[in-house]
Parts: sequence; C-alpha cells; structure tokens
Amino acid sequence: MIKRDKIMLTGKKTLALTTILFAGVSAFAMSDMDLVKKVTKAGIKPIPSSKMEILKLVDDPKNPITDRKVELGKKLYFEPRLSKSGLISCNTCHNLAAGGVDGVAAAIGHKWTANPHHLNSPTVYNSVLNKAQFWDGRSPHLEDQAQGPIQAGPEMAAPAKLVVQRVTSMPGYVNEFKNTYGSSVKIDFKLIADTIAVFERTLVTPSSFDDFLNGNLDALTSEQKEGLNLFIDKGCTSCHNDIGLGGTMQAFEVAKKYKFASLGDFKGDKNGMVKTPTLRNIEETAPYFHNGGIWSLSEAVKEMGSVQLGLTISDKDAAKITTFLKTLTGEKPTIIYPILPVSTNKTPKPEFN
Amino acid sequence: MIKRDKIMLTGKKTLALTTILFAGVSAFAMSDMDLVKKVTKAGIKPIPSSKMEILKLVDDPKNPITDRKVELGKKLYFEPRLSKSGLISCNTCHNLAAGGVDGVAAAIGHKWTANPHHLNSPTVYNSVLNKAQFWDGRSPHLEDQAQGPIQAGPEMAAPAKLVVQRVTSMPGYVNEFKNTYGSSVKIDFKLIADTIAVFERTLVTPSSFDDFLNGNLDALTSEQKEGLNLFIDKGCTSCHNDIGLGGTMQAFEVAKKYKFASLGDFKGDKNGMVKTPTLRNIEETAPYFHNGGIWSLSEAVKEMGSVQLGLTISDKDAAKITTFLKTLTGEKPTIIYPILPVSTNKTPKPEFN
Repeated sequence: MIKRDKIMLTGKKTLALTTILFAGVSAFAMSDMDLVKKVTKAGIKPIPSSKMEILKLVDDPKNPITDRKVELGKKLYFEPRLSKSGLISCNTCHNLAAGGVDGVAAAIGHKWTANPHHLNSPTVYNSVLNKAQFWDGRSPHLEDQAQGPIQAGPEMAAPAKLVVQRVTSMPGYVNEFKNTYGSSVKIDFKLIADTIAVFERTLVTPSSFDDFLNGNLDALTSEQKEGLNLFIDKGCTSCHNDIGLGGTMQAFEVAKKYKFASLGDFKGDKNGMVKTPTLRNIEETAPYFHNGGIWSLSEAVKEMGSVQLGLTISDKDAAKITTFLKTLTGEKPTIIYPILPVSTNKTPKPEFN
Repeated sequence: MIKRDKIMLTGKKTLALTTILFAGVSAFAMSDMDLVKKVTKAGIKPIPSSKMEILKLVDDPKNPITDRKVELGKKLYFEPRLSKSGLISCNTCHNLAAGGVDGVAAAIGHKWTANPHHLNSPTVYNSVLNKAQFWDGRSPHLEDQAQGPIQAGPEMAAPAKLVVQRVTSMPGYVNEFKNTYGSSVKIDFKLIADTIAVFERTLVTPSSFDDFLNGNLDALTSEQKEGLNLFIDKGCTSCHNDIGLGGTMQAFEVAKKYKFASLGDFKGDKNGMVKTPTLRNIEETAPYFHNGGIWSLSEAVKEMGSVQLGLTISDKDAAKITTFLKTLTGEKPTIIYPILPVSTNKTPKPEFN
C-alpha cells in the first residue's frame, strides 16, 4: 500500500500516470496532498478533529460554554412557550431533525404568516461559524441573533416581557437557571437568549470533507475529490470559504440577475451585501437562496455560476460539484429530546391575537 | 424500621393509633396495605414494574413491536413532511417534550386552523392504554387513530397518496422500511400509520403511584396517600380507573352542565358517550376537558365533582386530590431526537393551499 501523503508530484503528465498506476478507476488526476494544498490556498479550513479544538473554536469568553448552559439552552431551544401562541419554538423553523431548517421556501410563523420579505430560514447547524447572522448580516453573533425571531411578529411574536414572565412562572426553569448561573441570577430576556445561543454554539457537524482535510486522505472518493477540485476551479470558494464554506458578507448580484429575483423584496444590507450561506449540510437544506427559489442542488450550483461568477456550468460539472457538496453533510450531535418544565397557574396563557 | 407490608390492620381506632405511632406527622389514618387494597377494589391497576411485563401489556400480536419499527416509527412521528405543508408532525400537537400535548385549548393545524369542534389534543403518552381513541372513541386502536390527524383538513391535511409519495421519494425511508419489514415491503399509508403506532405504543410512563401499587409503600408521601384516598372516596374512580386512570367511554354530562359547555359543539358519540381522558401526567396536560376550557387542575377537579358526580368538592379537598394527581406524572422514555432522511428532487414539495 502506498502512503499517499508521501507522494509529492507536480507535473501534470506525472500526475496522470500516477492516477492510472495507483488510484485505479478514477479519471481525476491530482495527488491528494496537492488537492489539500489547493483547498487550503482557496481559504477553506476544516472543522478540527479533536473535541477540545472544536470547543476552542466555538466558545466565546464573554459567554463561555458549560454543560449546564447547554442543557438549559437545549430546553429553551425546543420550548414552544417562548412564542406568543405557545406553539412555535426555535426548532420549528430550525429543525434539528431536518438539517436545521424548515424545508419551506419562506419561513412560516405566528398565525401562519410567511416571512414578509420571503426570506428562507437559514440552518442553525454550524451557524456559530458565520461571521455575521441573518441574511443581511445585521447581527454580530448568536447571542444577539437569538433575540430576533422570538420577538419578530411573523415568527414567534412574543414580546420580551412575556417571554420572561412565561419562563419565570415555572419553578422548573427558575431552579435550572439558579443551578446554571447561581442563586442570585436575574432571569431576563438577554440571559434567555444567551443561554439558547450557547446550545446553538455546540451544533457543529464535522463531515468526511473535514476528515480529508485533517489527514485521512481516503475519506473522500475520487469522484468527490474531482468535484472538490472543480468547485475550486470554478471559483465557488471566492465566497464559500473558511471553516463554514460561507458565513461572510459578500456582494450579491441576485437582486439583479437571479432567476427568481422577483420572489420577495430582499435587497441585502444597505450596501447590497448579503451573508453567503454555509454549504455545510447543504444537501439537507433545500430550498436554496435567500428566498428559497430553487429546490435542486445542481440547479442551484448552475444558477450561482451564472449569477455570481458569470460562468455557464454544464449539467455534468454541476453534478460533479454536487457530488462534492454532499461530503459536507456532517455528523449531527446526539440530542436527547428534552422534557420541559411544567406550566403553573401563573404561566401566561397562549395568545392568538 | 417497621416492615409496612406486614402490618395488616382493620379497626379504625387501631389505624389511628398506628398512624400516630409509626407514620409520624401524617394526619391520614389508613394502613398502606389497606389503601392498596382500596385502590385495587376501585378498579385501578398499576403499570407493571418489569419491562417485560410492560412490553406484554402494550404489544399487539397483529402489529408486534420490534426495535426497528420503533426507530422508524419515531422518525415518522417527528416527520413534518407527512403534512401537506411540510411543517406539522405528529409531535407538533402531541409534543413529547411537553406531556405529549400542545398546551393550547383547541388544536391548531394546517394554515393555523383551529379544530372546528374546539377539541383539545389528548396526550399521546399512555394512549396505548386507552380502550378507544379520539374524544368520541371512534377509533379502536392507535394503528387506526394515526391515520386520522395526518389526513384531517384542519390538522396535517395530507391526502394518503401524498404521504406515500413523500415517504417513498426518499431512499433513506425506503431502505429503512426494507430493513424493518423485508425487501419486498409495500410502503402504503396503512403501513406508515401502523409503524407510527408501534412507536406510540412504547410511550408508557410509570410513576411513583405505580411504584406504590407495585409494593414500594414509601413511594408516596402521606399527603399523597390522603389525596388518593379522597380521590376514591369522592367517586372519581367510577370513570378514571384501570391502568390508564381513564381511557374508557363514559356517559358525559359536560354538554349539559359543564361551565364551558358552550365552547365548541362537541356532543360525544351518537350515544352521548365520551372517552374519559387518562389522568396520567395530568399535571403536564393543561388545559383540561375536551375543549380545553379549564387551565387549573384543582378547578378541573371541582368542576368534574360538580358535573359528573353531583358533589361540591371544597378547595381544600380539591388541593388534596391534586396533590395525589401529581403522583401520576411519570418517567418519560429517553428519546434521541431523530435525524430524518434527506428529500430528493422527486419529493413532492410543501403545499400551502
């Protein structure tokens, strides 16, 4: 057996020969180490392989992760009583069973209201890796982001005061906040959102792509490697880079050129910039784009090539890139479904107005 | 230490003395064994203490429980794509994190439609112990019941054909059905509902009340025992009996006398009979009654006394009975939140009409 990471080849001809000799049936001609270098040069980084390193990556000294915060944050994440109606939780639109999304084009919230700008729910998985939150990047981190949808009229529609009244009416929550933050804790809306954010920080999903970049060069098939190479060659990494393969603000041409540009009225932030969505778990997060206009992943690849890169990507190449994109489907953290605290006579009732 | 199950006392005076001597602060004067006998005579049975016996209790030879069916049924139970919109799962209205219910008066379904008869979602926990399903008892078992809400217009609103198309469009599901039922399996709507029902059969929640009846006479406090005794003396067990403390069809006076009788148009089945809801986990399943008219458990106790038994139950006695009712809050099975199969280009899209 050949130690692949020892092979350092540069010439194209030699590569082709090596491929025939050592890589068997693959038509893709590049050494694995060269591909890793190319990926790295394109600005992509893996999720680290050690749990300690992942923790370091996702932790924030201003709101450090603890086991108790994660457990309490999980309950709050699945808590429908944080919504005005008592029916909608964070998990309703960011379903951890379904790629961290709701699988519909525009988010549906309180009283079955569609997002007024026809915006699609982004995945919560790996959202900690985003440099900004929301499609227009208006929120710097998850602690801030988590406050938004709870209060937004077409989403959970709950005033901050109602949320605090609901939570503090339940001894089960009050005791858990005390156990988590100390007996003199003041349970306010910010702390509730901060605690949810800590849980969300843990939702990182390493995949076979990370295994490959972390040194297991057999973690991808040669077809997947070929797709990855094409993904870089086409220029997709000019926006989809870093650990999240996305998550930074980028100039966004969609409003002008995108096939479904007329769906909704989103124009990006004040400078026409939009958050590039992560490509991690992209296989699970259809429909695609800010307005959920496209359902097919390979069609989305072609559309992005055309709109953002000025390229015509053939069906064949789009299929190859899609083959690579599926290697970004990661392993999800095991989540034990929580048992939520019991309401009391003091718990404010569901409201449907 | 006194072995309580050896004490066999009959005289009231002796009991009172025994209580003072051995039971400490309790004002409740009856030997534990006598109370167990009284409970048994009132027609109440415990959930067995051994897992094998529970399995025997909930299994159905026509649709036997297997680990694979339970695992697949769990996925389907949490599967929002079984609904027309792709947003509502069984768990939406029967939330396993929240006592198996939705915590609102009348169920809210497709397009935010309230149940047209203003009916409250019954808990799925221990529903296998019911002798009939639905408030009007029209369904004989969970396999049949599970077909209802998926198709019902104001609930999940999905025609059976659409459900089958969705499920069979996903190789993840098709493979799991093959692994569960054999490679020649025909995935039809009935089999999907049957598989959900198998998962639901496992949702049994033994509590300290069962521990008490199964011989751990210290499992209840003397206040809880006093409430239990009162629960029987008041006649609550004439309807709330058997293992489920409910679940049989009973004549129902609510339509005539109940305080909130005007809320909705439910009149029971054609004979005016209605399914007595289980009292297990009743602490977690407010609001109460078929139309969710009452939120306070002790108020519900008083209302039932008045409407069904012709009794005025004092606030003090209602509080005592409520203290007992909370012993029916059971231990929930540990549920690992599932990761659902990925949609494909063939999966029928969400429909919002």
